[in-house]
Amino acid sequence: MENGLFVANNIWMMLCIALVFIMHLGFSLLEIGLTRAKNTINILFKNVIIIVVGLLTYTLIGFNLMYPGAEFAGGFIGFSGFGLELPVNGLTAEYYNGQYTFWTEFLFQAMFAATAATIVSGAVAERMKLGAFILFSAVYVGLIYPIVGMWKWGGGFLETLGFYDFAGSTLVHSVGGWAALMAVWLLGPRIGKFKDGKIGVIPGHSLPLATAGVFLLWFGWFGFNGGSVLSAEPGATSLVLVTTCLAAAGGGLGAFIVSYARYKENDLSMLLNGILGGLVGITAGADQMGVTDAIVIGLVAGSLVVFAVSLIDRLRLDDPVGAISVHLVCGIWGTLAVGLFGNMKGLSQFLNQFYGILIVGGACVVASFIIIFTIKKTVGIRVPKREELEGLDVHEHGMSAYPDFRLNEH
Amino acid sequence: MENGLFVANNIWMMLCIALVFIMHLGFSLLEIGLTRAKNTINILFKNVIIIVVGLLTYTLIGFNLMYPGAEFAGGFIGFSGFGLELPVNGLTAEYYNGQYTFWTEFLFQAMFAATAATIVSGAVAERMKLGAFILFSAVYVGLIYPIVGMWKWGGGFLETLGFYDFAGSTLVHSVGGWAALMAVWLLGPRIGKFKDGKIGVIPGHSLPLATAGVFLLWFGWFGFNGGSVLSAEPGATSLVLVTTCLAAAGGGLGAFIVSYARYKENDLSMLLNGILGGLVGITAGADQMGVTDAIVIGLVAGSLVVFAVSLIDRLRLDDPVGAISVHLVCGIWGTLAVGLFGNMKGLSQFLNQFYGILIVGGACVVASFIIIFTIKKTVGIRVPKREELEGLDVHEHGMSAYPDFRLNEH
Amino acid sequence: MENGLFVANNIWMMLCIALVFIMHLGFSLLEIGLTRAKNTINILFKNVIIIVVGLLTYTLIGFNLMYPGAEFAGGFIGFSGFGLELPVNGLTAEYYNGQYTFWTEFLFQAMFAATAATIVSGAVAERMKLGAFILFSAVYVGLIYPIVGMWKWGGGFLETLGFYDFAGSTLVHSVGGWAALMAVWLLGPRIGKFKDGKIGVIPGHSLPLATAGVFLLWFGWFGFNGGSVLSAEPGATSLVLVTTCLAAAGGGLGAFIVSYARYKENDLSMLLNGILGGLVGITAGADQMGVTDAIVIGLVAGSLVVFAVSLIDRLRLDDPVGAISVHLVCGIWGTLAVGLFGNMKGLSQFLNQFYGILIVGGACVVASFIIIFTIKKTVGIRVPKREELEGLDVHEHGMSAYPDFRLNEH
Repeated sequence: MENGLFVANNIWMMLCIALVFIMHLGFSLLEIGLTRAKNTINILFKNVIIIVVGLLTYTLIGFNLMYPGAEFAGGFIGFSGFGLELPVNGLTAEYYNGQYTFWTEFLFQAMFAATAATIVSGAVAERMKLGAFILFSAVYVGLIYPIVGMWKWGGGFLETLGFYDFAGSTLVHSVGGWAALMAVWLLGPRIGKFKDGKIGVIPGHSLPLATAGVFLLWFGWFGFNGGSVLSAEPGATSLVLVTTCLAAAGGGLGAFIVSYARYKENDLSMLLNGILGGLVGITAGADQMGVTDAIVIGLVAGSLVVFAVSLIDRLRLDDPVGAISVHLVCGIWGTLAVGLFGNMKGLSQFLNQFYGILIVGGACVVASFIIIFTIKKTVGIRVPKREELEGLDVHEHGMSAYPDFRLNEH
Repeated sequence: MENGLFVANNIWMMLCIALVFIMHLGFSLLEIGLTRAKNTINILFKNVIIIVVGLLTYTLIGFNLMYPGAEFAGGFIGFSGFGLELPVNGLTAEYYNGQYTFWTEFLFQAMFAATAATIVSGAVAERMKLGAFILFSAVYVGLIYPIVGMWKWGGGFLETLGFYDFAGSTLVHSVGGWAALMAVWLLGPRIGKFKDGKIGVIPGHSLPLATAGVFLLWFGWFGFNGGSVLSAEPGATSLVLVTTCLAAAGGGLGAFIVSYARYKENDLSMLLNGILGGLVGITAGADQMGVTDAIVIGLVAGSLVVFAVSLIDRLRLDDPVGAISVHLVCGIWGTLAVGLFGNMKGLSQFLNQFYGILIVGGACVVASFIIIFTIKKTVGIRVPKREELEGLDVHEHGMSAYPDFRLNEH
Repeated sequence: MENGLFVANNIWMMLCIALVFIMHLGFSLLEIGLTRAKNTINILFKNVIIIVVGLLTYTLIGFNLMYPGAEFAGGFIGFSGFGLELPVNGLTAEYYNGQYTFWTEFLFQAMFAATAATIVSGAVAERMKLGAFILFSAVYVGLIYPIVGMWKWGGGFLETLGFYDFAGSTLVHSVGGWAALMAVWLLGPRIGKFKDGKIGVIPGHSLPLATAGVFLLWFGWFGFNGGSVLSAEPGATSLVLVTTCLAAAGGGLGAFIVSYARYKENDLSMLLNGILGGLVGITAGADQMGVTDAIVIGLVAGSLVVFAVSLIDRLRLDDPVGAISVHLVCGIWGTLAVGLFGNMKGLSQFLNQFYGILIVGGACVVASFIIIFTIKKTVGIRVPKREELEGLDVHEHGMSAYPDFRLNEH
């Protein structure tokens, strides 16, 4: 292999690592922006500690669960030992995968891992105990995410079955989304969300920060999808960026049109979630779609977000930031879309996608239910009523996020 | 052509795409930071929808108007059909331009396109109807920007005439700036800006967000100018980054000194706009300037911003964020500076630049006047008085950007 | 040398320049987030003007003091003339260092230079005169930082002595940290910080912005450390990113555990400063450490931050953002850690590191004392009491950062 090409591939992957990293800032700002000022520090703390815990557990155990090596190919689970087992000693790692170094591979995967738990963070905002959330995250990122991911990306049985998921509509976003669904159900809604049979609106406290969050997530998605090519191959990477951006635009347009048609309002948070829905939707097949496919996938995803937010409300589930609508619903849609559009379209691929969604969904529902239910019955998952009313910031962190500003009580 | 080099060039261009994309977050934060809290959601909504609409219209029509192909060389207008006509089918695009793929070329140009309309967004803030703005943006980004851009970058008659504009002091920033001027004139000033013959000051509601916006714009300019080399050629790209950064620094220093000398105050918004002025000013010739040239161009641009802001106020034009001063005035200055400094300096080049400015300016003034005037006489461009006083957020979006904070009425 | 490789190396370095640049936004947001609303514009102004002044002084004099050329090798000081002396004329710079162009080298170093002064900015926040700070910054970035940096990176006597500092735990962070210590001592504490023998808490006004700042600093550190490889060599760069991220995670975990153990609170600002401490700590040896080394270095650094913040308070030194704890204390720790871990560990290297710390520390203490003391005795360094109480924004800038928000007086 030519040296300049190897260096170039590795640069692209390192750039993508940095972009995926900054998605955590995007998630943080989106989540605090769409929730109340009194719970801001708590959400920030969770989002920061998730990266810390996620990187360390993935180093210790996750990476070797997700990529256990060739002897576990086609299987359900494998483990190649604690910590990082370097392919070589010393400073210079040998070529990995023929495209980039072992270190680059590890760090790209590690940055991905923490996003699954972050998705849950938004859904459980404003009422979940900090310790319970950290505990859940450590187990979910350290064990569940890598085992499920191994089924496809680590060469496991879903790979053998013909399931396709380019960058994780199912393996990242739905894995987070299913856990968010379980957590929201087990936690119950925030006080005041459903009152006297009506669905209350609890507005987010900073739309500028929420918007900045979505811009940063889109920015980071250049790396999330672009890096999933696993090389800098020009045709594939640049196509992926085009489909990603057009699906995002389609998602925004779809949500804008549908929400305007339904509610006669220019709803910024729907527009933002529509863009995210488009991004999640394209993620399973970003390398397979043409221009029109990408726009259509985005339009459908953005429309789905509007309907899903309303449906989840009517199911009396309280998801403050719309995480389930964006990551689970659009994750499922995007995964199915691989069977409807793109290179491999057809009934056979559609069924492969469908089975993959069922299997991963079943596993995640069971696993996240067990983890969260166990935490609920032991240390507890919900903060006391008074703490919820006065805000988690003061009670769990002894601080206020905006001490110089006069706030409205609510 | 060597494969590693091709991959490397394509990586650089993809990085620049991401950087130009994040400029939209920069514009969003700058614009909301320099305006009032009650219109924040409206500005955010505009900035988000511009990318959505800009990407989609550029895909549908703009790209093929701007780069219609060799048969239209030297001409005024050309069109190679709706949608993207791929040079090849399937996943792997052939080398484009010898440096990067077709997809990379398209997406880089598409990201540029939306910035022209974004410039207008700031100037018309706090009083323009949302629907009118979206309509204007779609036409301006979809038709006017690409046709004018084709005159130079698409091989049209301005290219033949010897006009030079490296990355768009004229073709992006002035194209936006002229439309901003027309829009501001046709819209009229905000209520309270000019009262009893005096020029009122309407302070922006968040200087931190405005400052973050300028940092992100500077960051994005690495890609805006650096990508305009259209390859990763090391000498050219690294020179462009140096001249870009030194002009930005010069612009900041110029605005700082002049505004301190005139007003005896350390005016942060002038410092910020001075930096942007320096960036706009260097954009036409960033590949041609030496270190001293770049600093001088920046110093002049930064000084011009201070004078222009004051002049525009005295002309009773209300530009809440200084967009006309930054993008139009410094865009003109930067374009002329190509004739005064750099490789091609001399009277002949200066006149070429001058003619180019006149032609583009004339076209943009006429086009934007017609579009905005037509919208004004049909759907209307200005929100009702009560809506303007109470804020566009509540009236056009049914939300407040900061519901948890107690705000001052004004 | 192969052309594709050269282009790739240069791309990596240009990317790292952009990442180091955006650290200035990170510093800005962190500093305003941890201080009061009434001094926000002042801090933003300082952080913006530092880049302006830093880039220009480094162009004029700093670069040629820091890299004066081979004839000064092993020495204490050298200077190769004012302004940038290009290795070649015209547009295309020749290969520099065999890896990237002269322009890339210059701009990477220039972006580094301003960070040293920025570190001081946070420590002196809320009470130092703007003019005094700009004066100090210009001298410190233009003269002291490059002279001290030359001792090691410019081939001076510390290089000869065997001192090692990969990316600047000592040469950037401690250089800033020592000056911060001197400045804080000469300035005295903010009014209200130490009252009746007690240590007061003056909470920061925006934890979201502080958190965004830390995310951006971590993001920028990909370039700060990654670029310090001075090529895109895949093994070295990717290892550096891994050690950097794991040390950051270790730092966060260390600060979280220690601060929870000591204070029984989930302190977000400690978590954030712990991450920064981990980043500073790994910086001296990021290219030399294994996975476990990096985590341990981070854990220690994060723990040290908690103890140092408390110690500095007890010494009656007022460092509003914890800059001394993060940059000086962890800078020293990280530099010593090179002698304890990694390739060159052993008593001999440990002593080399120790001597380097002493020499650089001595020089910076003396230099910064002289500069700040001279400014104190001439133009003065501290704002009047009334200005401090009412806020520097109104007095030095004639503006408020948040005019639409109702603020608490304090």
